[in-house]
Amino acid sequence: MVREKGRKTKAEEKLREFGRGVIEDILRTRPPKLRIPSRSTSNIRYDEKNRYFVLGDRYGVRSAASMKQVKKFAQTMCVADFCRELIANDKFATLREMYYTAEGWEAGPFRDQGESDAIVEDLEATFTLKREDLGLMPEEDGAAIYGELVVREEGVTIDATKAGRAGYTIPPTIDDVEFVKCRAKRVIAVETMGMYHRLVQEEAWKKFDALIVGLKGQAARATRRFLKRANGELGLPVYIFADGDPFGFHIAMVIISGSAKLAYINHELAVPDAQFIGVTASDIKNYDLPTDKLRELDIARLKQLQRDPRYNTPFWQSEIKLMLELGKKAEQQAFAKYGLDYVVKEYLPEKLGLKG
Amino acid sequence: MVREKGRKTKAEEKLREFGRGVIEDILRTRPPKLRIPSRSTSNIRYDEKNRYFVLGDRYGVRSAASMKQVKKFAQTMCVADFCRELIANDKFATLREMYYTAEGWEAGPFRDQGESDAIVEDLEATFTLKREDLGLMPEEDGAAIYGELVVREEGVTIDATKAGRAGYTIPPTIDDVEFVKCRAKRVIAVETMGMYHRLVQEEAWKKFDALIVGLKGQAARATRRFLKRANGELGLPVYIFADGDPFGFHIAMVIISGSAKLAYINHELAVPDAQFIGVTASDIKNYDLPTDKLRELDIARLKQLQRDPRYNTPFWQSEIKLMLELGKKAEQQAFAKYGLDYVVKEYLPEKLGLKG
Repeated sequence: MVREKGRKTKAEEKLREFGRGVIEDILRTRPPKLRIPSRSTSNIRYDEKNRYFVLGDRYGVRSAASMKQVKKFAQTMCVADFCRELIANDKFATLREMYYTAEGWEAGPFRDQGESDAIVEDLEATFTLKREDLGLMPEEDGAAIYGELVVREEGVTIDATKAGRAGYTIPPTIDDVEFVKCRAKRVIAVETMGMYHRLVQEEAWKKFDALIVGLKGQAARATRRFLKRANGELGLPVYIFADGDPFGFHIAMVIISGSAKLAYINHELAVPDAQFIGVTASDIKNYDLPTDKLRELDIARLKQLQRDPRYNTPFWQSEIKLMLELGKKAEQQAFAKYGLDYVVKEYLPEKLGLKG
Repeated sequence: MVREKGRKTKAEEKLREFGRGVIEDILRTRPPKLRIPSRSTSNIRYDEKNRYFVLGDRYGVRSAASMKQVKKFAQTMCVADFCRELIANDKFATLREMYYTAEGWEAGPFRDQGESDAIVEDLEATFTLKREDLGLMPEEDGAAIYGELVVREEGVTIDATKAGRAGYTIPPTIDDVEFVKCRAKRVIAVETMGMYHRLVQEEAWKKFDALIVGLKGQAARATRRFLKRANGELGLPVYIFADGDPFGFHIAMVIISGSAKLAYINHELAVPDAQFIGVTASDIKNYDLPTDKLRELDIARLKQLQRDPRYNTPFWQSEIKLMLELGKKAEQQAFAKYGLDYVVKEYLPEKLGLKG
């Protein structure tokens, strides 16, 4: 298996190109500027073909000739330079570290981290690269993986069945991870670590030839990138098993179609073919699950989802409608009503079409 | 290295003893009952000698002869039976799974999970055992570890320098983990994963012969148990490096002296000799760190800490006082002001007494 190469080379080239452009402008005594795709709501649209949010064609120009923009232009150059240095030294920094490092920059400290983060997003959108490619890493680690996958990280080979019960943890630098060998045939991503440990304990990874991925709630960037790579590079179908409530639906949908906020980078993160297998409203009925009443907030959220273009499929529309009719939600651990191993013996085989 | 054995045997014996007592009572036609140490605030006291919160001598009696208590008595027996079965089958369940499993019990479902959780705490306090010893595991995994430690889990040997950048993850079942080999001489536990990855990247584990532990904020039960075992069984001093704010102090203190809420189990979790190395209020001054203003809530919290018996040492009292005087707090990543590696090159060597 060959992993995609040259991400950092590509990032370095884009940064150098930016720098060269600025020098050239100065030598020709014309003001340097940068065209930055607009990330405002009005420039975000749902792409029916790709099945995720993308940016439209609008952009803004940041110019060193404008008194209002010159400081921000200088800061943008400082951030680009900081990133170039990270890449050159094969290092990573968090956004927070960069914010503090900026205390020493001539372009002055940022008022708050929101300001420096926004400049990173500008560079991501402009170069169509992820911040991770620029040497900036998320604070949080990704999901836990258990199953027959062997990876290589910085020369070390790791077997995701031999990293302990808690599994192999997806690092923030997931694009530096090489897939060495994979015998699994599918990915089952689960919302809670309670369910993750249940599936590991019942050897679901063996029974279903699956990589069990413990999302720890909303999937981190690194997790979404891993799922994208597992789907694309390893050709594994991705199944998502979350709580049967609006937040569980949302967790699944962010993996499937990305978020509007990250429209500029969804092509690197979204897994449009990933499939939500439950807990559905139908499951609540068919399995007679223990439930909680929908709260006001749940109902409002479900009604929002009904109008969201990502949920505009017969499956989602009928499940959302049914949940509103039932007035009830259920957690994935609710299957314990029928015994701890019911979820592995009955529910998942049915959902994965592996029954009988 | 031999790890403590027979935790489950001990738990099973206690449960059987409870069951036998009930049968004996019934055969002698006297009402079965259980003496349960009180966990109410008035029965929690700070133990100066052990340096953590413990339960006092008061207890309550739960009797099958009382109409008010008989249902709860039956539920207590059901929980005990559920745990006995888990232990017998070498399984683990989450509290949430147990709550849902109870849907099928004759003693009837619980009104909410608070009820079933309370019964587990009753059993913990009564038997002076952790819920993990009873087969009940926390939902969340523990911290990440990077450094020269080799462990064995279910027959698999894991080297915490060969589990990837993200490190070896402490499983909820940490008492089943055997320490095979440890070449590290100390533990450095850090609050944020940003700092964890900084220390891994700068090879702090090698430079300081340390296990780097990434707490991910407030330490999970499994993490606290790991730190306790590392300190006790491996004889490693434990250093805690957190943000310089009331929450950072709290994170450190819960590791050191435990919480009042878990007074019944602190003897298994507290590490009274663990040392908070920063960020202190003095550090903010001495290193001229970038700061944020203390908010109202921070000030109120600091004043609370001044009166908390766990902070009744000259070190803590003077640091809290100084922070109030400065009116400022600082994050551990603030050292990036002086470059990304400053924390490893300058700050930590000074704090650990490894300078020069």
